[in-house]
Order: sequence, then C-alpha cells, then structure tokens
Amino acid sequence: MQVNYPSHANIVEVGPRDGLQNEASLLHIADKVNLINALSQAGLQHIESGSFVSPKWVPQMANSDQVFANITRKAGVIYSALTPNLKGYEGASAANADTVAVFASASSSFSMKNINCDIPTSIERFTAVIEQAKKDNRPVRGYVSCVLGCPYEGDVSPQAVLDVTKALLDLGCYEVSLGDTIGVGTALKTKKLTDLLISQISINKLALHCHDTYGQALTNVLIGLQQGINTFDSSVGGLGGCPYAAGASGNLASEDLVYMLNNMGIETGVDLQKMVHIGQEISDVLGRKNQSKTGIALYNKVN
Amino acid sequence: MQVNYPSHANIVEVGPRDGLQNEASLLHIADKVNLINALSQAGLQHIESGSFVSPKWVPQMANSDQVFANITRKAGVIYSALTPNLKGYEGASAANADTVAVFASASSSFSMKNINCDIPTSIERFTAVIEQAKKDNRPVRGYVSCVLGCPYEGDVSPQAVLDVTKALLDLGCYEVSLGDTIGVGTALKTKKLTDLLISQISINKLALHCHDTYGQALTNVLIGLQQGINTFDSSVGGLGGCPYAAGASGNLASEDLVYMLNNMGIETGVDLQKMVHIGQEISDVLGRKNQSKTGIALYNKVN
Repeated sequence: MQVNYPSHANIVEVGPRDGLQNEASLLHIADKVNLINALSQAGLQHIESGSFVSPKWVPQMANSDQVFANITRKAGVIYSALTPNLKGYEGASAANADTVAVFASASSSFSMKNINCDIPTSIERFTAVIEQAKKDNRPVRGYVSCVLGCPYEGDVSPQAVLDVTKALLDLGCYEVSLGDTIGVGTALKTKKLTDLLISQISINKLALHCHDTYGQALTNVLIGLQQGINTFDSSVGGLGGCPYAAGASGNLASEDLVYMLNNMGIETGVDLQKMVHIGQEISDVLGRKNQSKTGIALYNKVN
Repeated sequence: MQVNYPSHANIVEVGPRDGLQNEASLLHIADKVNLINALSQAGLQHIESGSFVSPKWVPQMANSDQVFANITRKAGVIYSALTPNLKGYEGASAANADTVAVFASASSSFSMKNINCDIPTSIERFTAVIEQAKKDNRPVRGYVSCVLGCPYEGDVSPQAVLDVTKALLDLGCYEVSLGDTIGVGTALKTKKLTDLLISQISINKLALHCHDTYGQALTNVLIGLQQGINTFDSSVGGLGGCPYAAGASGNLASEDLVYMLNNMGIETGVDLQKMVHIGQEISDVLGRKNQSKTGIALYNKVN
C-alpha cells in the first residue's frame, strides 16, 4: 500500500487558548504574552491566542484583550481568538484578532452542557458573528467538538458531524476543525468519519483536532495524513488536561506532532528544539507535568 | 485507500522482563509473581517473565529462577525467558520456561556496548543456545534491537536489519521481534523497513517491539498492522524507562495498544480494565509514574 503524504502540513497551535483554558493555574498576562511570542519565534504560523468569553465562565481567559494588546506581532502569523457570540466578536475585533473561531458540537448533550443551547441554536448564534466578520473581512474558523465520541452520549454518528460541519461551512467558515474532544477516537473510526466528510467536503476545508487522552492522537493524525488532510491542531507541552480524568492528557502535544511530521519529511516550518524548551518552560511556570513525550525525551536527553 | 486489518493480534507482554529490567527499583519476588499471575488472568497469552543473565549486570532479574518456580501457570499461556548464552539457557531450561529469547542488534556499536561483542560473534554465541533448544523442543524467539535508529550510530540501514533478522531465522528462531529500542522510529521509516523485510521474509515470522520515547509507538504499530504484521510487544503501565533521557517513556504501554486494537475490532483476548488496574498497581509498588495514557485516563475516569 503506497500513500502520498503531503509535502507540507499546517499546525494550528492552540496551547495559549484551548490549552491554558483547561489548566488549573491562572497565568499572568506577561507569561501568556511571552508564551505567544516564543511560539511565533519557533515558527508557528497560526496561534490561537485568547478567547472573548465571560470571565465568570472561563477565568483563565479573562485578560485576552490585554494579551492581544501586548504581543509582538510577527509578520505572516495569524493570531486568532475564540468568539462564542457577537459580544465576544466585538472584543476580538477591538483586539484586532486576525481570525476568529466559533465552536459547535456534533453531540446535542455536549452542546447543552458546554454552551448551554442545542446545536441549531448554537449555529443560529454564530450567524450574527459570521455576518459581522464578513463585513470586517475577518476569516472565521469553525470547531466541531465530540466528532469521535461524547462524554455524555458515547458514540456520535459521522452523519451528525457532517451535518454540523456543513452548516458551519455554509455560514461562511473557511475551515472546520474536527475535534476529538475526549480523545476516544481510534484509527478506524477516524478513517470512517473522514471517508464520509471527504466524500462531500473539499479536503482543504478540514482540519483535525486530536486529543491524546488515550494515547491515540498521533495515530488519528496519521490516518488524516493518509486521507489527505494537512492541517492539525496541537498544543505545546500538551497544555490542557482532561476534565473527565485527573492527570490524564488532553490536547495532542505539538512537539510529538512536529517530531512525527519532521521525520516523515513533511515540512512544518517549526523549530522542534525551540518548541521543546517552550513546552518545558510553560509546564514549569504552571507547576504541571510536561505532557509531551518528545518534549520530555529531548529536554532530558543525555547524549 | 482501503486496508484489511487483521481480525486478531498477538500481544507479547514484556513488562516483567524488559520493563522491570529498566526500572530503578528492585522488586520482591512475590511482587513479580503477583504481576505475572495478574497478567495471565487479564488474558495475556505470552508473558516474558524473566531473564537468565548475570545478576552483576542486571540485578533486577537476579531471582528469575524463583519467579518461574512460584508463578501459577495458566494453561495455554507462554512464559518466556531471555537467555543470552548457553549458561542462561540452562537456567531457563531448569526453570521450565516455555520459550526462550536471544537478543542481537542491527547496530554494531550498540551490540558492542550492550552485549560486549560484535554482531557476528553474538549470532555465533546464540548458535549453541538454539541448538540445545531444538534438542529440547523449546521454541526460540529472536530480538533485533535498534531497527529504526541507534543511540551511538544514529540511522541504521534496513539492510542491516534484514541481515541480522535473516541470520536469526536461519538459525531456527520461530519469530523475530523488531525493536525500536530508543523509540526514534516514525511512520515512514517503519513502512520502508517493513517493506524490505516483508519482501524477503514471511510476515508471520515478524513482530514489532516499539518504544514510545517520542510518542510514536502506536503510529508505528498502525503502520505494522497496515503491512499485515499482527504480533506486537508491549509493557503494562509502560514499564521500563529510557536510559538516555530521565523521565522519558520506554516500552509502549500495553493498555494504549489494547485500547487501539479493541476499538479497531482487532481481537486481543485481553481485558483492558484488568490491565489498567495492573498497570497502576505495579506503578505504585515501584513508586514511579504510570506511563500509560489509557491507564491514567481510565483509572481516574470521573464518569
């Protein structure tokens, strides 16, 4: 079986948002700014840098406006923000986020518990955001959560993922990131899901957002690469845990992803050694264990 | 791209030997016996249970004879032992090990540093072991280390792996386990290596022994499955570290492997929940961190 892997892959670094949002410790603004600046210096081209949500719900993201105001913008790098509604969008716009992201779910129960409304209502709520973003010439990325399983419903049907993905693309999202929010996906499920999506959606509008809770994230990325997908979300140091199991991994660690891609001759533009140091430093600042296997191995390498 | 995955996979559990041998703490005999008995009760069919080497070199394996004498043998389960030379073989034979294993390297430098002789000499040394094993009707498994990279030489050529693998099979090994001893292998390298091996060796004589030092083990197993290999070595709790980086992972954790295989409909006969408890318990006994992501996630699962 011969596979034509892509020559280049895009990494969307979600550590400063999706990662930090799921860490127990609150960071100082300066630490967040340093993290984002270090990531841009390591070659990341798309850095999810904050979220404009109520600080009541997500205290970790309370100061995203100040983070955006203080980062050193590197030419060509996309600094994006999560915007759940029009009020959030206005904050992101004022902060001059390059792109914004909206967040839907393929699981109705998860949607209710996570953003307090059913799936159709969530799509409706995003309509206003996307309309305004269009006027402002600001690209909107879509997220779909629970694409390979839900903590409340268990299995999620590929058709449900297709429906919400199409709805977000129809509204005007330039890309939809398929999130295995609880990391339960395995290779065959990823294959079946992407088979269906690819049959109806242009592959360059799809990204994979794999979690490593069960150690499966890279196998799912590998299937994605074999399917022709070449945009992947990951988080330096594996920032972000799992709310359903103490000590478990959350986001796929960027270092582990870059290690694989670099060694497969798939260009990422990312400096792995710099990433390893960023992952260890932010883990130390947060007082949590580095969740990147590559990070631990390279940082502590003897010879 | 359609792949016909095997309907069944064989897991060779190497925790009690390859795993414990690379842990700092020495276990009591009773703890080892309990571990091996628990593994057989969890459905493992092949358990590497000890090593008959000089206790000067490997103190963790000093009491393998007593371990073998005290385990409760379960019908159908293979209890194997590592035997570097004829003296070791005699010990394993006296202990009634069901199969024995010999250990060569695809890297000359690694062979010199690890077993203190070059590759041809190591093969010669195994000849006596295998001859005696044949007389005793005892199957011999071969290991080849450094198949995807060497800590001293860097890259290792697939041809070198092929040569030593063939030599072991020619001597009479029933199977050769291809070891990515330092975990540097990635998907494409695994594909290229196995392409060459499969072109000249029957696939049912090959097994993969992947290390997870850089988080790549399961992607390499996935490639192996796509190539038609269906025997994989792993270690409960990811027992066994990496001598080249403090805190780094070593052997692929059996729980992560079983999670993937079970969820791909590939039968293993292994009870994952039992494995999760064994992995956590032995980690606690050793006072080391559980290295299985699946183990941590399932052991600490909230709902």
